[in-house]
Amino acid sequence: MSTVEKPSYKVIGTRPIRHDGVDKVTGRAKYGADIRLTGMLWAAMLRSPHAHAKITRLDTSKAKALPGVRAVVTSKDFPDQGDRLVELGEGSVNMKHLAANVLAHDKVLYHGHAIAAVAADSIHIAQQAVELIEIEYEVLPPVQDALSAMKPESPVLNTDVRTKGYVAGGPGSADQPTNVASRIYFEQGDIKKGFADAAVVVEREFHTATVHQGYIEPHNATVLWNADGKVTVWMSTQGTFTARQQTAELLRIPVSDVKVVPMEIGGGFGGKISVYLPPVAAMLSKLSGRPVQLVMDRAAVLLATGPTPGSYIRVKVGTDKSGRIIAADAYLAYEAGAYPGSPIGPGCMCIFSCYDIPNARVEGYDVCVNKPRTNAYRAPGSTNAAFAMETVLDEIAKQLKLDPAEIRLLNAAKEGTRRVDGPKYSRIGMAETVEAIRDSAHYQSPLPGPNRGRGIATGFWFNVGLKSSVTATLNLDGKVSLLEGSTDIGGTRTSIAMQFAETLGIPCEDVHPSVVDTDSIGYTDVTGGSRTTFSTGIAAVNAANDIKQQLIERAAIHWQTTPDKVQYIDGGVTCSDGQRLTFKELAAELHELGGPVIGQGTSGKEAQGGAFGTHCVDVEVDPETGKVQILRYTAAQDCGTAIHPSYVEGQIQGGAVQGIGWALNEEFWYDPKGLLRNATFLDYRMPTCYDVPMIDAIIVEVPDPSHPYGVRGVGEVPICPPPAAIANAIANAVGVQMTTLPMSPPKIMAELLKQKK
Amino acid sequence: MSTVEKPSYKVIGTRPIRHDGVDKVTGRAKYGADIRLTGMLWAAMLRSPHAHAKITRLDTSKAKALPGVRAVVTSKDFPDQGDRLVELGEGSVNMKHLAANVLAHDKVLYHGHAIAAVAADSIHIAQQAVELIEIEYEVLPPVQDALSAMKPESPVLNTDVRTKGYVAGGPGSADQPTNVASRIYFEQGDIKKGFADAAVVVEREFHTATVHQGYIEPHNATVLWNADGKVTVWMSTQGTFTARQQTAELLRIPVSDVKVVPMEIGGGFGGKISVYLPPVAAMLSKLSGRPVQLVMDRAAVLLATGPTPGSYIRVKVGTDKSGRIIAADAYLAYEAGAYPGSPIGPGCMCIFSCYDIPNARVEGYDVCVNKPRTNAYRAPGSTNAAFAMETVLDEIAKQLKLDPAEIRLLNAAKEGTRRVDGPKYSRIGMAETVEAIRDSAHYQSPLPGPNRGRGIATGFWFNVGLKSSVTATLNLDGKVSLLEGSTDIGGTRTSIAMQFAETLGIPCEDVHPSVVDTDSIGYTDVTGGSRTTFSTGIAAVNAANDIKQQLIERAAIHWQTTPDKVQYIDGGVTCSDGQRLTFKELAAELHELGGPVIGQGTSGKEAQGGAFGTHCVDVEVDPETGKVQILRYTAAQDCGTAIHPSYVEGQIQGGAVQGIGWALNEEFWYDPKGLLRNATFLDYRMPTCYDVPMIDAIIVEVPDPSHPYGVRGVGEVPICPPPAAIANAIANAVGVQMTTLPMSPPKIMAELLKQKK
Repeated sequence: MSTVEKPSYKVIGTRPIRHDGVDKVTGRAKYGADIRLTGMLWAAMLRSPHAHAKITRLDTSKAKALPGVRAVVTSKDFPDQGDRLVELGEGSVNMKHLAANVLAHDKVLYHGHAIAAVAADSIHIAQQAVELIEIEYEVLPPVQDALSAMKPESPVLNTDVRTKGYVAGGPGSADQPTNVASRIYFEQGDIKKGFADAAVVVEREFHTATVHQGYIEPHNATVLWNADGKVTVWMSTQGTFTARQQTAELLRIPVSDVKVVPMEIGGGFGGKISVYLPPVAAMLSKLSGRPVQLVMDRAAVLLATGPTPGSYIRVKVGTDKSGRIIAADAYLAYEAGAYPGSPIGPGCMCIFSCYDIPNARVEGYDVCVNKPRTNAYRAPGSTNAAFAMETVLDEIAKQLKLDPAEIRLLNAAKEGTRRVDGPKYSRIGMAETVEAIRDSAHYQSPLPGPNRGRGIATGFWFNVGLKSSVTATLNLDGKVSLLEGSTDIGGTRTSIAMQFAETLGIPCEDVHPSVVDTDSIGYTDVTGGSRTTFSTGIAAVNAANDIKQQLIERAAIHWQTTPDKVQYIDGGVTCSDGQRLTFKELAAELHELGGPVIGQGTSGKEAQGGAFGTHCVDVEVDPETGKVQILRYTAAQDCGTAIHPSYVEGQIQGGAVQGIGWALNEEFWYDPKGLLRNATFLDYRMPTCYDVPMIDAIIVEVPDPSHPYGVRGVGEVPICPPPAAIANAIANAVGVQMTTLPMSPPKIMAELLKQKK
Repeated sequence: MSTVEKPSYKVIGTRPIRHDGVDKVTGRAKYGADIRLTGMLWAAMLRSPHAHAKITRLDTSKAKALPGVRAVVTSKDFPDQGDRLVELGEGSVNMKHLAANVLAHDKVLYHGHAIAAVAADSIHIAQQAVELIEIEYEVLPPVQDALSAMKPESPVLNTDVRTKGYVAGGPGSADQPTNVASRIYFEQGDIKKGFADAAVVVEREFHTATVHQGYIEPHNATVLWNADGKVTVWMSTQGTFTARQQTAELLRIPVSDVKVVPMEIGGGFGGKISVYLPPVAAMLSKLSGRPVQLVMDRAAVLLATGPTPGSYIRVKVGTDKSGRIIAADAYLAYEAGAYPGSPIGPGCMCIFSCYDIPNARVEGYDVCVNKPRTNAYRAPGSTNAAFAMETVLDEIAKQLKLDPAEIRLLNAAKEGTRRVDGPKYSRIGMAETVEAIRDSAHYQSPLPGPNRGRGIATGFWFNVGLKSSVTATLNLDGKVSLLEGSTDIGGTRTSIAMQFAETLGIPCEDVHPSVVDTDSIGYTDVTGGSRTTFSTGIAAVNAANDIKQQLIERAAIHWQTTPDKVQYIDGGVTCSDGQRLTFKELAAELHELGGPVIGQGTSGKEAQGGAFGTHCVDVEVDPETGKVQILRYTAAQDCGTAIHPSYVEGQIQGGAVQGIGWALNEEFWYDPKGLLRNATFLDYRMPTCYDVPMIDAIIVEVPDPSHPYGVRGVGEVPICPPPAAIANAIANAVGVQMTTLPMSPPKIMAELLKQKK
């Protein structure tokens, strides 16, 4: 662990056992599908067998008539959304599109698109009833990649998508339907002049496949629409309040009439923010008067949730003779999936953000295609962009005979650097992560042997802040119950409790955190955007400070003095006359000193400073098959301050492994009719423990000045560098520069065979 | 409704639908026995068939060996309590006694005393295993009334009970065992001189039977002792924090390792404060590694929980010729049941507290007998006392030919009156309740017909304050989630929400209250002592004021001004320049004005002012059978300010009906061996709708100055007057003055026959 000016902490930086560990190890932890309610019905869904079709007839009467069926719903049972745009936590959402994704309206836009749902006394009856739904389609031609979808001859998915200047294939008015849902444009300096002055210019085109988050636990929702109009949703979600709002908006009822109860979550990675099932289960519950459970199977998860976009990217970079970047230009077209909303924005924000580039331009497009509506996946949009930028930079380094670490250090963004999308950096640790890799035993070691190569790459994620709430109540035994609204995916119960404990100077074990429902805690945004340990941490620190202040007042009562004579120091209160009470001693007396003590804290005003990671990978390429074996992998990341180093390492390792899967094997495989042919974990090939070595994590600590303990979010950055680092290592090993993802054996073989010609 | 200087409220005094109403009507509400957990075991208990016996042999090995049995516990499996006295909410409790009541140690002290418990795969296996427990007793003679138990020749129940000066039957040292667990003594003025000066003196002796609270829902506990050492208890209880503390103390683990989750409660009336089952189910869970459910059957409830004490009371009152009380003397001996702890203290505090008496003395004894350990029951101790005092006062009125209302008004306690136990009254409404009855249509109406009579009586309860916590979170739709720790027995979700809504000037329907577990809210004392609407109400008002202050700060941000320029008025904020935002408008913008808003409030410093009720009853006595029929019943009570008049009326009606049952029929019927022979609802005769007419409730409102809206607790007072009022009505109807409870047909007949002789 490399450390920059670290204050001395008592709790932060230690590795306590996670509060929810025993329940997860013993199987007591309850996930979404574990809930059982009296009189509960099971539900199943009808999904589209076509990638693109008009629904010409839909008759559910036979399904409704099947004994044991209690309710059948289609989109007709839901309120009309009009043309509403609603702020949903991380941006405004077109509610008509969200509703149509939950249950198709007159068209289906992807294979697996949900159309109808049945609730019945058993899952078997529900599934049988789905078969009895009569439906007819007029099949339409599908379009499944961004560049094709932007062409004039492309079929158009959504006739209400009108982006001025971007009708199919070229200029047009906002009155013409198009698949281009939005355009992003950033510019700084003068790229024309920049490229004219450049000594070296490299331009490349890239294609990346659609990949899925691959969480183990399928989506689920169990809903009771109670006779009093209140709707309770039990589900696993990354954000109970976001799920609450989406559900309420889709049902057009007040948000406070919906309570979302968070169950444990078996992975999300961004894919469990958007709502698929709760409104459907809610409507089935309303119609049947019974609680309804709706759980996806694996195929439904892969067909109809998640993925992160496939993309086309063109990058052009020019440097002077020393390797200093003086101009950069990027064009990105990201697949939105069926409805607008790809992470093209973040892709454009990230692509050049590791570097200080005087002249730059980024142009990006969000393009609808006949694939499931994309969703966030760990640093959404940034991995695609890093693959392009970081391989181009390596090509330049090679031409200039620069060490790949040196060219990155030479150009590294630092405090004060202005990003092409506008913001100026506060103190960041980009260069420190490159130095950590450069100086690592791994990078310093030799790599003998044929077909072996080493590559490095850097990645960036801006990290969000947003809003969180924490409440804390003191027990007479000197322990604290901590309530939080952030669902715990990666150990945040503990990382939040640690910050609270540090602030009060008490042991982490004396803080008992609970993740509670939306009625029981103040508004809290999603566990995503690498925000939870940062922002909910700030809320916890504020709650602890609130308690400190109250304890000072109680101690003043105890000592019959005034609060200004009392200080809270080092886990207790000290009177100006020298008397002292520990936290535990004071807690035991609270009921005689004015009653219970409750602390509360919120966050929402703080913006994170951004985080960087640099990875180094050694590969061996099998020249006979094109298979790439990862030999050694080291990831250095600036996490500001590592609250719980084990979880930081875990995030880095997990992110790197997902990036390795994305790099080498994962892809949605569509047939010519637009049907997904690998919607199983057998055929959608994620890395297993046989595919990856131990990931060595190097924690770099450059504290973020916007957090009281310097925390930076850590969850997202580690997925960004792997595809680029592996591509650079492959180039180093066998001399072919890959420009498509995944870099699977057939694609590598094709390049190797081209090389031999 | 009679009103004294009532401010104009918008929410207080209205009758909104209760928030939990639909769930209770539709059956969705979950009570203690409704909970089901994965892998849950069912438990059954072995109970004593004797009233008093030594356990000479206890062998559970055959029970343990029965297939399907997962754990068996006796008191030997529990930690030793030593001689600890622990503060448990409303007073200090001898933990050894509490533990021995939960599972008997070497002796059983009453019929039904719990001895052992078995957890098994089904309740049938558990019950079969109980039969296999081998146990032998040395049967001891029982003693079942206070006066007998105080005699020198009485068997002594607890050899560790040593009350100095009160060994059996008379003076002695603290080294000798006794059944007298404590003595209470209050005195003011000079009673000797008072009685010497009196024109009229009446002295009478009274006996009252043991009666039970008679709640419909049996006691229950479902407990998981988790592998991480954390214990979760799902139960119906009047106080989750008290149940938590008792459970933790009995298991000798930290309170914060126990979480009590409140289920809905089917009645308590004081009887669901003390813990019987949770420690037993917890230990069975610890030994089996599984969650365990333990639910009493009706017989166990009547045999081993609850009751309020049978008692012996002697009262002597002297007045001058005008009826002014100048001296009063009382001697009370209350049956504690098996272990110390009868409500003798409250009995002594209440007996003379309706009146302004210059010279008074009260002497009281807490006496152990071979009956279940007594517990609180609605104004515990006061009903027995009121029966004695209020009938003696009526006899004096008769002798002086004074109207019963007039003698009460003449002597009524008022602001400044000093109670014999010390405190001086703040503003109270004693006289106002007598006036309300005196002026009522009922009291003013004639009562023609033979064997008919009318009686009145007054009752007092001091009402407690204690500690509560409330947390409130704002939703963007302008509605509020309210968390409280007070379990809701009589509609307090709504009465608390109403005070919160009134303070913020918003509709009650916009406040969504939840009663949450002990991890999710600050410390809150029991729902009992008529404290909840008072004290949790204050906490809610404080939480609302906290929110007001935060909204003023947010509005200042919105208007780009300073908080001192903003006022919260009438459900919204107003800027000094005249601009205005309603609560809803401001709530919608909170996320742009600094993030979530959480309010918190506690209470604990406030003492209630005491409450009074005067009842009037018409009866008809059947001279052939002695059966008393209630013809008409009116109850007037000072509730300070009626938050929700329907619930106030409901409390008055419910209390009056319970008092009627106590007066006329209810009694524990023990045989000569000390065995309870009527432990069923068929034989323990509570009133049904055939026995009572509609109870007319007159709400008197004399605001309590210690509550921001003037609330007085209402739940307890209404049970105090009925036995005395009915006895006075019987005397008025047929000329016999009853001095024993219940005034059942055989007892009335006996008096009527004596009269005829």
